[in-house]
Amino acid sequence: MHSIEELREIFTTYLNQESFQQEPKNLYEPNNYFLQIGGKRLRPTLLLLATELFGGKIENALPASLAIEYFHNFTLIHDDVMDNAPVRRGFTTIHEKYNLNTAILSGDVLMIKACEYLSKVEAIYFKTVFDVYTKTAIEVCEGQQYDIDFEKKEKVTHDEYLEMIRLKTSVLLAASMKIGAILGGANNEDADLLYSYAENLGIAFQIQDDILDCYGDETVVGKQPGGDIIQNKKTLLLIEAIKKSERNNDNRLADLLNQQSAEKVKSVLAIFDKYGIKTFALQQRDEYVQQAELSLEKINLDDNKKSVLKSLIDYLVMRDF
Amino acid sequence: MHSIEELREIFTTYLNQESFQQEPKNLYEPNNYFLQIGGKRLRPTLLLLATELFGGKIENALPASLAIEYFHNFTLIHDDVMDNAPVRRGFTTIHEKYNLNTAILSGDVLMIKACEYLSKVEAIYFKTVFDVYTKTAIEVCEGQQYDIDFEKKEKVTHDEYLEMIRLKTSVLLAASMKIGAILGGANNEDADLLYSYAENLGIAFQIQDDILDCYGDETVVGKQPGGDIIQNKKTLLLIEAIKKSERNNDNRLADLLNQQSAEKVKSVLAIFDKYGIKTFALQQRDEYVQQAELSLEKINLDDNKKSVLKSLIDYLVMRDF
Repeated sequence: MHSIEELREIFTTYLNQESFQQEPKNLYEPNNYFLQIGGKRLRPTLLLLATELFGGKIENALPASLAIEYFHNFTLIHDDVMDNAPVRRGFTTIHEKYNLNTAILSGDVLMIKACEYLSKVEAIYFKTVFDVYTKTAIEVCEGQQYDIDFEKKEKVTHDEYLEMIRLKTSVLLAASMKIGAILGGANNEDADLLYSYAENLGIAFQIQDDILDCYGDETVVGKQPGGDIIQNKKTLLLIEAIKKSERNNDNRLADLLNQQSAEKVKSVLAIFDKYGIKTFALQQRDEYVQQAELSLEKINLDDNKKSVLKSLIDYLVMRDF
Repeated sequence: MHSIEELREIFTTYLNQESFQQEPKNLYEPNNYFLQIGGKRLRPTLLLLATELFGGKIENALPASLAIEYFHNFTLIHDDVMDNAPVRRGFTTIHEKYNLNTAILSGDVLMIKACEYLSKVEAIYFKTVFDVYTKTAIEVCEGQQYDIDFEKKEKVTHDEYLEMIRLKTSVLLAASMKIGAILGGANNEDADLLYSYAENLGIAFQIQDDILDCYGDETVVGKQPGGDIIQNKKTLLLIEAIKKSERNNDNRLADLLNQQSAEKVKSVLAIFDKYGIKTFALQQRDEYVQQAELSLEKINLDDNKKSVLKSLIDYLVMRDF
């Protein structure tokens, strides 16, 4: 068994080796640039991990892991356009560095390249893997649409928010591990259990992200806290705070959301404290962690291997970065 | 055997039956709108025709034909953004009717839906069909990139232009017929010959389009002639006219390209006449028609069926609309 770090390294070597060298340069070069920006390579690494956990060879899973990373980066390139984001991970985004048309078309071809790499998986697994992939890819688009819709929607419920982050963030993580498991030779039941494990893990991961955005240590997280609050982003925390405020006929939060004062973050956090929002969010997070653990218990793997997946929860969710 | 008109009708019924009913509405409804705008449904119709020519059942080819139509419309939605086009076939384009983000994301999901429908083809054909599809989809993106590149490129050769239209227009037509043939049970050789037939047909079709843009009858073509000339679009005709002008140290065309006068179209066409540009373009077109006919001859189909494909050439290329 390789460590997560080793798997990431193996994947990165493969990614670099497969970098686009073909013409037209204006189509492919922006993708090489964007793929080099990096990131944690979480999805492909977890795909390879799942393959190895079920006794498969990672060489056979490399094309599928690259397909997932291509698809993920395609969504990032287009999301950056939709969010009008000039910077990602400290680097200029594609539409900003090149132009809108490049971001659209280079993104498009990257997603088709994902399909091409997916078709390199062993013939016996191809149809199964492909069906997981298309279902997931569609869900990711739906999640992005809900995210856009929620910006303009006055009332978003907890369930709606959780479904949105499940679609936007969680299912691709889950599909990566399921595909890895399938390629490793797992049976359907175990592949589905691993999917469920990663799906819940992904939601817990995103809730932790929302918590850190409010309560993280700037020197550890690497960005100023309160970004979501400044943007009135309807996270689980804000949704709960609005609910509690309304129940108490407390207008202070509603007033704060209508303004952009220098004190906004501090004042909103004070209201969060009053209504126990952090505790609520931590509880929600831990419920999804427990669901992940429940699925993990049922997977037919020896304890040694399960402990790898157990520690993954700590690494991804119980983090302060 | 069904007629082209009947096949188009069968396809349209299937397209309508499969229209998107799911949530989120803001993601799917724009695709229903765009797909209803219509068009000739050329690619799916030719796919079904090919299936029937080789003795297959069109019911088995409907999902693949819809996949091709979805993919084609995905490219149109994104191309309209890139071209900043407010209108297509007399209807408002998606980015204009909704907004940029809708055009990007609804286009994205449409292309993934194409993959989903493709995966509904019979298991024995899936991998083969999928490989034709991804190769083609990548080429279409490359063609679009070359088209964008050529706008800024000072010198474009005949070969570069022909390769661009092959990629942008022709390969999807060819892939549609090849996939139809495969699903109809054609052997590899015949499927490849049909591809070659349609590839050449597609190039001839595009050259005819370029000719009609200069010399078409407005009442028949449905748009004012000279659009390409006004935009200095580097078609086969303009490329040849520039070449001939340079050889003759004739600066008039270069001067005309640098200005936008009311007389521009008329003056450019006068230069085209002087250098025999229309004749040149017709010859080029007919060379591709001949190539298509050569491939057609070699296909292992009875004469009755070949005559259908022969008349398709007349219908698509030897047209004045």
